[in-house]
Amino acid sequence: MRIYTKTGDSGETSLIYGKRVAKNDLRVEAYGTCDEVNSIIGLAVSHLAEVDEWEERQKMQTSLHHVQTVLFHIGSELATPKEKEVMWRIEEKHIKKLEEEIDYWQEQLPELKNFILPSGHVAASALHHARTVTRRAERLIVGLKDELHTPMVLQYMNRLSDYLFVAARYVNNQLQIEEHILIPDI
Amino acid sequence: MRIYTKTGDSGETSLIYGKRVAKNDLRVEAYGTCDEVNSIIGLAVSHLAEVDEWEERQKMQTSLHHVQTVLFHIGSELATPKEKEVMWRIEEKHIKKLEEEIDYWQEQLPELKNFILPSGHVAASALHHARTVTRRAERLIVGLKDELHTPMVLQYMNRLSDYLFVAARYVNNQLQIEEHILIPDI
Amino acid sequence: MRIYTKTGDSGETSLIYGKRVAKNDLRVEAYGTCDEVNSIIGLAVSHLAEVDEWEERQKMQTSLHHVQTVLFHIGSELATPKEKEVMWRIEEKHIKKLEEEIDYWQEQLPELKNFILPSGHVAASALHHARTVTRRAERLIVGLKDELHTPMVLQYMNRLSDYLFVAARYVNNQLQIEEHILIPDI
Ligand code: B12
Ligand code: B12
Ligand code: B12
Ligand SMILES: C[C@H]1O[C@@H](n2cnc3c(N)ncnc32)[C@H](O)[C@@H]1O
Ligand SMILES: C[C@H]1O[C@@H](n2cnc3c(N)ncnc32)[C@H](O)[C@@H]1O
Ligand SMILES: C[C@H]1O[C@@H](n2cnc3c(N)ncnc32)[C@H](O)[C@@H]1O
Ligand SMILES: [Mg+2]
Ligand SMILES: [Mg+2]
Ligand SMILES: [Mg+2]
Repeated sequence: MRIYTKTGDSGETSLIYGKRVAKNDLRVEAYGTCDEVNSIIGLAVSHLAEVDEWEERQKMQTSLHHVQTVLFHIGSELATPKEKEVMWRIEEKHIKKLEEEIDYWQEQLPELKNFILPSGHVAASALHHARTVTRRAERLIVGLKDELHTPMVLQYMNRLSDYLFVAARYVNNQLQIEEHILIPDI
Repeated sequence: MRIYTKTGDSGETSLIYGKRVAKNDLRVEAYGTCDEVNSIIGLAVSHLAEVDEWEERQKMQTSLHHVQTVLFHIGSELATPKEKEVMWRIEEKHIKKLEEEIDYWQEQLPELKNFILPSGHVAASALHHARTVTRRAERLIVGLKDELHTPMVLQYMNRLSDYLFVAARYVNNQLQIEEHILIPDI
Repeated sequence: MRIYTKTGDSGETSLIYGKRVAKNDLRVEAYGTCDEVNSIIGLAVSHLAEVDEWEERQKMQTSLHHVQTVLFHIGSELATPKEKEVMWRIEEKHIKKLEEEIDYWQEQLPELKNFILPSGHVAASALHHARTVTRRAERLIVGLKDELHTPMVLQYMNRLSDYLFVAARYVNNQLQIEEHILIPDI
């Protein structure tokens, strides 16, 4: 089967269950941006593969692949009209998993009393990048609030950006790359 | 000649032929986002240079540079008011070229019956990233539909995201990096 | 202290001084996009660390960290309601510093009479990427023009994209990687 069907050439596309909408419909913006987050998490996974001196690397990659999976649940919820059944649902357990990982990593990190300048290992920077795009996706989803099947979508995205922040710090910490704390130039 | 002219410091800028518009005019959003796609394709080209065990690398880089070139045609169309002549036009041949390359790559790939989790070689992930931003650009251009000189702009962008998807898969396939098929966590 | 407070789970958040707004409020969009720029500059800094044959690398990294710092000033200005005092202010000296660096780099570069295709060293491509996202942030800030405490915010963002363009060219120039000039396919 050819991947290009040409059915979207005029600027319309289909949601799950087939409803036609413009490609700039807010639902499409929202799941399209989740896809963007997904691709940047992919970049972080790829860059983590370049680290070889660190044993928790694989654990983090597996965790990130799980996040990518959950983003498809969120995408499927966003692409399903409110009156229809969502097939891949987001659940409490997904949010809980994020929180557990945040707690586990944070325990090992020095407490922060300030902003940090994103940088360090390229995988850490990619995680920061994923973090900021997750927040853009969250902002778009806020505009769909009344159309959501469950408030867990917003909870998950909110938690995800914190997870990515802590993951970025953790990578640098484990690789003994020093953080750059923001020192305002005033 | 200095690159900074300061003429845009107050938030206005010029289209081709000189018409002044706000920088958040939809045309500027649209060609600005094509520029963003262009820069991410540049990242993919740069990352491909890190692959050395693969002979089709140069062919793909050349193809991506051609896409970058066509994005300037699209940018020039988007920056030209409808009543004026477009100087760098997008043509059938540009779309055809994308389709031929999709077909050539896809032939060599296992058929897909599911979504994949973006990752693998960093060049593949960068191509996925370019794919998702191309789709964002497409969504912006949809809002300009009645202002376009030709429907080929939308066709090209629609085809381009499929091209980038197949290109990403092809890179991993050639480098014998396994794809991660989405397995929903339900 | 836990990083996730859950107070933003319903889609609202706080500005500086505490005012509650929706996460898709234009102010939040604007400083959130500055944060996105910041993270991509972080990627450029990380990729520069992979270059080792070049002595001005550290100087550029320091300069980019300074830009990240100023982006926090801009973020704090965007997050402060107009009637309140901004704590980390953007000043003339910040814009001047950008201009001096642009001038210093540009002097050493061949004059340009055309567009270039972003690519070359991965750090150069990351700088192009930061450039295009800076321009997206600038477009969002234009929508807040009447809410700004100072026009220097727009001046800084306008100058910053030119700085990043010249920085990208300079990296490739110093590493003796040839630029790809746009040759339209007409
Ligand atoms: C919503 C949607 C998306 C969203 C969100 C998905 C999500 N859940 O988060 C996003 C934006 C991510 C997306 C992306 C893409 N999509 Co899409 N998407 C859809 C849509 C509308 C619903 C899919 C869905 O979530 N179903 C929910 C589940 C519960 O139901 P399901 O139908 O059983 O789901 C199966 C298939 O839809 C999917 N699938 C089946 N065959 C194929 C083949 C390919 C190539 C792909 C990628 C997926 C796929 O896998 C699921 C099996 O578990 C369908 C069209 C439709 N109305 O069904 C297109 C569709 C699946 N997508 C398609 C394509 C081409 C893509 C992209 C390659 C586009 C691109 N160039 O970027 C990417 C691939 C991304 C990736 N990483 O693999 C095509 C596949 C055509 C084909 N058979 O070759 C479809 C059929 C649309 C079409 N007619 O063109 N998509
Ligand atoms: C639309 C536009 C863009 C768009 C889309 C372009 C497209 N076709 O896709 C985008 C967003 C990509 C863009 C980006 C930039 N642009 Co511009 N752009 C324009 C604009 C309005 C029209 C250009 C065009 O497409 N013309 C269509 C062709 C058919 O006509 P043309 O005039 O013969 O085109 C020639 C020149 O415009 C261009 N050119 C000539 N001298 C120079 C010098 C530089 C430094 C550059 C980058 C280009 C350039 O090359 C073409 C020759 O084939 C012009 C201003 C104007 N009104 O002309 C600015 C203009 C060319 N851009 C300019 C600049 C500075 C840039 C950026 C560096 C800004 C930045 N910091 O990101 C980037 C460079 C991107 C790159 N990869 O090289 C300046 C160049 C100033 C100078 N001489 O030094 C101009 C003149 C605007 C200005 N007055 O400040 N741009
Ligand atoms: C605006 C804002 C942002 C903006 C813009 C900031 C800017 N200036 O450009 C952006 C979008 C960048 C941002 C990002 C984040 N932020 Co914020 N942010 C704020 C906010 C609303 C104001 C901060 C500010 O600029 N103050 C101006 C200065 C002049 O005043 P100040 O209060 O003395 O500033 C100090 C602290 O705010 C900050 N700080 C103090 N403790 C901590 C702890 C952490 C973990 C961090 C990151 C910062 C931080 O450092 C400053 C000291 O110089 C505060 C909440 C509030 N109303 O105060 C949250 C706040 C500081 N942010 C917070 C968080 C969690 C984050 C993120 C980690 C979120 C994420 N997952 O991405 C990131 C971190 C980014 C980074 N690189 O470090 C939390 C910190 C919670 C904690 N103590 O653990 C706060 C308190 C909000 C909250 N209640 O949840 N933020
Ligand atoms: C850390 C600070 O970031 C802001 N904030 C909260 N959520 C988002 C988002 N999705 N995008 C951008 N900024 C956000 C709030 O102002 C918060 O206090
Ligand atoms: C694969 C699926 O992606 C969605 N789709 C089609 N075009 C875009 C776009 N530009 N941006 C985001 N999503 C899109 C449609 O729902 C399609 O069926
Ligand atoms: C180089 C050209 O880029 C356009 N331009 C100026 N500022 C922006 C921005 N923030 N985003 C996108 N395009 C912009 C103008 O058309 C200018 O002439
Ligand atoms: Mg949050
Ligand atoms: Mg499509
Ligand atoms: Mg400018």
